Amino acid sequence: MEERLQKQLDFILEIDKIKQINRQTYLADGSRKENDAEHSWHLAVMCLLLAEHSNQEIDILKTMAMVLIHDVIEIDAGDTYAYDEVANATKAEREKKAAERLYSLLPDDQGAYLKALWEEFEEKKTKEALFANALDKVQPILLNVASSGRAWREHDVCASQVLNRNKLTPEGSQDLWGYCLRLIEKNVELGNLRNE
Amino acid sequence: MEERLQKQLDFILEIDKIKQINRQTYLADGSRKENDAEHSWHLAVMCLLLAEHSNQEIDILKTMAMVLIHDVIEIDAGDTYAYDEVANATKAEREKKAAERLYSLLPDDQGAYLKALWEEFEEKKTKEALFANALDKVQPILLNVASSGRAWREHDVCASQVLNRNKLTPEGSQDLWGYCLRLIEKNVELGNLRNE
Repeated sequence: MEERLQKQLDFILEIDKIKQINRQTYLADGSRKENDAEHSWHLAVMCLLLAEHSNQEIDILKTMAMVLIHDVIEIDAGDTYAYDEVANATKAEREKKAAERLYSLLPDDQGAYLKALWEEFEEKKTKEALFANALDKVQPILLNVASSGRAWREHDVCASQVLNRNKLTPEGSQDLWGYCLRLIEKNVELGNLRNE
Repeated sequence: MEERLQKQLDFILEIDKIKQINRQTYLADGSRKENDAEHSWHLAVMCLLLAEHSNQEIDILKTMAMVLIHDVIEIDAGDTYAYDEVANATKAEREKKAAERLYSLLPDDQGAYLKALWEEFEEKKTKEALFANALDKVQPILLNVASSGRAWREHDVCASQVLNRNKLTPEGSQDLWGYCLRLIEKNVELGNLRNE
């Protein structure tokens, strides 16, 4: 038992590093970029409150676990900005190696469980993964809109890129996607998103 | 339905502010203080991985929800440092007002659900609240130990204060408390905690 607890706590301390992995999205007030721990916390609360908007009834605990750990691999692999094509070409390989190192810190059963959850998230096929993916895509839209498109403007993002990135969002939640679509249209009008 | 979703998203954006409420505890590497969103994320992952160490079998989803939202009231009430006696005298009143404002942003059923979860957490009586409380107390011990007692040293904290603050921790988890007790003894020897 002691060895098992030590492994669990080693992993728990190791993932403290996720608090220092910055994303490109700014906080709602635009004051600074958010990090992966904050983002994952936000998604977990969203999962709790918005699960009723999933197209299909989901296992909430499983989906919350998925969003809580989905970015842990970025401790080794770094955050890859959604609209950075060069970095995205090597993303899968970097993240796979990261998952192997990080999840092997845990007792075997829990390492395998978290690795499988992360793979399920990445494959975007199950109802839980589709809803988790929708939350992961909707949250930065909400923050971008709240911060007057600060990250979108800095990266000269156009509406078609956001739409393309959200291809699967309606498969997770038609409700959330309908809401976001109106936000995107409005933010093109406001000049926060380039219209192309 | 649209009004309900709007209320949910208003709350979700409002609680973005928790990312700017700093705690006294430093990150594991001692580089900066952690904030409430990061802390809550960490507790939720701990809940997922350490639930087997709860003295009593718990509802994991409920406990995760509890730790995810337990600090939301600090958006209005601020973080009250555990060992600040003056601030602790007014803490309950400030937090009650905060809960009323914040949870009223949500649809009634969800506002009542989160408020009840927070009250349950604060009362520290149910098995879920006792385990959530144990995680909330153990996590800063782990971070303090990892950062060579940086926050303890800055506030001249003595071992008896940590022990006093952790009176209920063994009621949540004997396993975690046994582990922490050894850490506390070792950190008194190392001079990271004052021995009094």
